[in-house]
Amino acid sequence: MNLGVLMDGERSSRLDVDSRGLNYGDGLFETILIEQGQPVWWGEHFARLRRGALALGMQLPDADGLLGEVCALAQGHERAVLKLCLVRDGAGRGYAPAPGARSQRILSLHLAPLLPMAQYRDGIEVRWCSMQWSQQPRLAGIKHLNRLENVLARAECEQAGVAEGLVCDSSGQVVSATGANLFVQRRGKLFTPPLRESGIAGVCRDWILSRMHVEIRELYPVEVLRAEAVFLSNCVRGIMPVKRIEQRQFRVTPLLAGLMAQLWHEVPALTPLPETVV
Amino acid sequence: MNLGVLMDGERSSRLDVDSRGLNYGDGLFETILIEQGQPVWWGEHFARLRRGALALGMQLPDADGLLGEVCALAQGHERAVLKLCLVRDGAGRGYAPAPGARSQRILSLHLAPLLPMAQYRDGIEVRWCSMQWSQQPRLAGIKHLNRLENVLARAECEQAGVAEGLVCDSSGQVVSATGANLFVQRRGKLFTPPLRESGIAGVCRDWILSRMHVEIRELYPVEVLRAEAVFLSNCVRGIMPVKRIEQRQFRVTPLLAGLMAQLWHEVPALTPLPETVV
Repeated sequence: MNLGVLMDGERSSRLDVDSRGLNYGDGLFETILIEQGQPVWWGEHFARLRRGALALGMQLPDADGLLGEVCALAQGHERAVLKLCLVRDGAGRGYAPAPGARSQRILSLHLAPLLPMAQYRDGIEVRWCSMQWSQQPRLAGIKHLNRLENVLARAECEQAGVAEGLVCDSSGQVVSATGANLFVQRRGKLFTPPLRESGIAGVCRDWILSRMHVEIRELYPVEVLRAEAVFLSNCVRGIMPVKRIEQRQFRVTPLLAGLMAQLWHEVPALTPLPETVV
Repeated sequence: MNLGVLMDGERSSRLDVDSRGLNYGDGLFETILIEQGQPVWWGEHFARLRRGALALGMQLPDADGLLGEVCALAQGHERAVLKLCLVRDGAGRGYAPAPGARSQRILSLHLAPLLPMAQYRDGIEVRWCSMQWSQQPRLAGIKHLNRLENVLARAECEQAGVAEGLVCDSSGQVVSATGANLFVQRRGKLFTPPLRESGIAGVCRDWILSRMHVEIRELYPVEVLRAEAVFLSNCVRGIMPVKRIEQRQFRVTPLLAGLMAQLWHEVPALTPLPETVV
């Protein structure tokens, strides 16, 4: 299941059934790429955790202490994924959070996904999900533990046999894929949705925004279909070109290929495996 | 924390950190009143569990086997609350549920809430929450484990020092309280919101619908404020009259008093404590 767990700094992998994490999803998480025993984009992950803690009124652990735990668990692992859950502590039943409740830290280490070169060279196939994200500005952008919508949207993709799906919100705007952010290139310019009402502001999305000029604005499905290139971003899979959305085909433009090459240069752990190895 | 736990029929209270319950809130729950060692409204709780399992594509445990576990844990308890979580099993990370994954059964027993007579005789004070329920028809009505909106709405009530709060959806319609369903009496008739887009269809709400003629329709805040009586329903607290919504006062009408008396007669465990005892 996992390669190791640290709960509040202790080696343990058992959670109490009274946990507010189980009962209400009252917490946050981060999925962090580990490269040579170190977290990639730690500053960005911690910044999102801070935004989430503010939105939920949760205590934020000390940054240095938390980084110490991350590094202790990741030590010796060349390439892995560390999942960090921050769960609001609280005794007893009832939705009300106890004021000033501490946050429990649950770190678990997992195998990193395989990144087959063909997916990055040719792109992946996606579909439109019939599932729509609900609109909730109080929870949008942050990576909280209430992820049933993602589960249902991803189940659709599995049933359709495609790697990912694009999801609109109930106003009909495209927000993201089920587990990745969305970018489109149109007339040479890059666009990505604003995530004010739904979706998660990804750390790899942050990286792209810091490296490229990207216009953040509402996108409708028809605009995505008119794009030259469409790609997804995710901090453990990197930048994934989209090859096909149902009938419509897209290509890997020079701009997109250049962006991927820059990412692999900066974060070698995101470099796909040569085909002879896969 | 709790008076006992049964996980898949075994005495244990420790959950694996890889649980999809913790990671995604991928599951359902029921909060069941126990009276003389037996679950109250078991058929209604199981029916809602069945609707939830259908909505999430989860396996439903055998009804008789589950009831046996409920009774085993509740045995000897005159009055208590049993929380039943049904969590989709699944190894590894990733939103996609494994097809046909079994459902883990987590039962825990808790003290029942005190029901002070004054709250039922005079009513409780509530406020309007600024938090709005998001609209998600795929998850509306069922009692799933993604409850961050309830946590945030209840936190508002705690901060305001009131027992409960009324919550609208993003279209401005009143849906429910943070942890109870809403009914209003206007010109002698009863109304309750439809819960097609958000909210949980409560088991005590079912009981009221089976006993009274109630029109299920959209309600706006102004209609609630114009009502003769406003009350909330919850299966472990029963029917709670609302005394005041901010400046507006309400009374306990004969219809409401009669409905409460009928409920206490049918479910003695919901009868409030006489004041001399509290």
